[in-house]
Amino acid sequence: MTLLVVGSVALDCVETPVATRDNVLGGSAVFFSYAASFFSPVRLIGAVGEDWPLEHTKMLQAKGIDTSGLETIKGGRTFRWRGRYLPNMNDRETLEVHLNVLEQFQPVLHDTHRDCKFLFLGNASPIVQLNVLEQAKGAVLTVADTMDLWINIQRDELGQLLRRIDGLVLNDSEAKLLANDENLVRAGHAVRAMGPKFVVIKKGEHGAMFFSEHETYVMPAYPTPTVLDPTGAGDSFAGGMMGHLAAIDRFDQQALKEAIAYGIVTASFTVEDFSLDRLEKLNRHDLDRRLDEYRRMLLF
Amino acid sequence: MTLLVVGSVALDCVETPVATRDNVLGGSAVFFSYAASFFSPVRLIGAVGEDWPLEHTKMLQAKGIDTSGLETIKGGRTFRWRGRYLPNMNDRETLEVHLNVLEQFQPVLHDTHRDCKFLFLGNASPIVQLNVLEQAKGAVLTVADTMDLWINIQRDELGQLLRRIDGLVLNDSEAKLLANDENLVRAGHAVRAMGPKFVVIKKGEHGAMFFSEHETYVMPAYPTPTVLDPTGAGDSFAGGMMGHLAAIDRFDQQALKEAIAYGIVTASFTVEDFSLDRLEKLNRHDLDRRLDEYRRMLLF
Repeated sequence: MTLLVVGSVALDCVETPVATRDNVLGGSAVFFSYAASFFSPVRLIGAVGEDWPLEHTKMLQAKGIDTSGLETIKGGRTFRWRGRYLPNMNDRETLEVHLNVLEQFQPVLHDTHRDCKFLFLGNASPIVQLNVLEQAKGAVLTVADTMDLWINIQRDELGQLLRRIDGLVLNDSEAKLLANDENLVRAGHAVRAMGPKFVVIKKGEHGAMFFSEHETYVMPAYPTPTVLDPTGAGDSFAGGMMGHLAAIDRFDQQALKEAIAYGIVTASFTVEDFSLDRLEKLNRHDLDRRLDEYRRMLLF
Repeated sequence: MTLLVVGSVALDCVETPVATRDNVLGGSAVFFSYAASFFSPVRLIGAVGEDWPLEHTKMLQAKGIDTSGLETIKGGRTFRWRGRYLPNMNDRETLEVHLNVLEQFQPVLHDTHRDCKFLFLGNASPIVQLNVLEQAKGAVLTVADTMDLWINIQRDELGQLLRRIDGLVLNDSEAKLLANDENLVRAGHAVRAMGPKFVVIKKGEHGAMFFSEHETYVMPAYPTPTVLDPTGAGDSFAGGMMGHLAAIDRFDQQALKEAIAYGIVTASFTVEDFSLDRLEKLNRHDLDRRLDEYRRMLLF
């Protein structure tokens, strides 16, 4: 089945204790769609400015990603983010954010987009996310991401979104903030009670937790010794997860668990190099081999 | 097989955001031996002062723990620790430490102790740990814990210990400090290269990592929604782990993985109440039931 992602397309500047990279390809929709493309057909909706290097679009297209929904805004500049990772490579500080074309962007779905059965709403204002949800008439599984900003300034709108989506993916500090509870297990249940059928909490190097009405579980991250740049790990996780679900066209309990495992494994490759550099060298066989290793790791 | 533990016996004062408890039963050898006693016979070696309430000893004896090695030092006071947990209940600050009788304590092993096949050296000066190791002639599996203090002030002696033990159990910040590496996967391998056949890194609410020459894996914590007091979780983990190994009298790869799972599950009960309160209400069936749940949680 085809998977639709609406999210940011960015040029990132990433500083780590070891190296710095300027103006590298980034953004939630980019990491998500590239990761998902190992599993299923993907259509991307997003906006860039006139400064956007066309070779990035070509690179996505070469992976089979449908970029017909990637709009170039006349006279606009691409969204830019600059961040610095602390020595533990799990925590980071945002140094600069320039929304640029994203400030006004209202995604419009064409017929091929509206028909997609699997929809991922990358981090954006819940008002924009609700608007996309309204248009995605063919979606049977809708999953969204969010961030602390929207929890703080658009909590009501986020609440409306949560009552209408099937799944929410967010990180641990965001879940604690949204639930106002420092215990992550209770926080996960509390967020689920706000509407979504399931909640996935991303814990960075500590893996992910899953919450549905009848299931609660934690899966650890795959322990890679090489962590060069964690940027995009969360979006790659979501891409691997949704890509697998779209590929098998199922989202029952077993499918979701397998999907989370694929998400974890996909993200474990992303962090091994800057931007999409590691994923570009990857094939599906590498993913499946690491998934098998991961499965054995958890068997006792 | 019988398991011997040498470690601290303490009276703890624990402050959490929700409640405070003064002078409750604590110490590494206490949590360890109580946890291990669900699995195998345990002999405890430690020291207390004249202020030690005898009902604590009786409580340990009622669990079948051999306390003949628990020495009461004339005129001495029991080791005391006061700590405060931050709202996340994973980080804590030590407010007071009074070593008291532990300042001079040199454990002496009697014949019944020397014959034990499984030995756990609770956190203590590596000089004391080496001295105990020297006496434990019958030990076939020796595992030690340590802490940042010894890494900082007795690194050479700790190095000697590491070359002589089979396994080291330590927490994540200690592993990073010892290896001088912020990447936990690399740190684990580096610590193993210092001598022990295997290293287990405790990550608190994020579970545990295992390192041997041919195996690296992570196992998450069991996601309990009830965390009242994490004190003793690490020692309960080690107790469950070593207790299982002693019970099955094996320490091959499969046995070690099962043992780590038992350790994780045992610790998940400890944190659900203050001191040993939760473990006192527990039976082996509860542990096995949660282990089954944990096993299913990791199966996909």
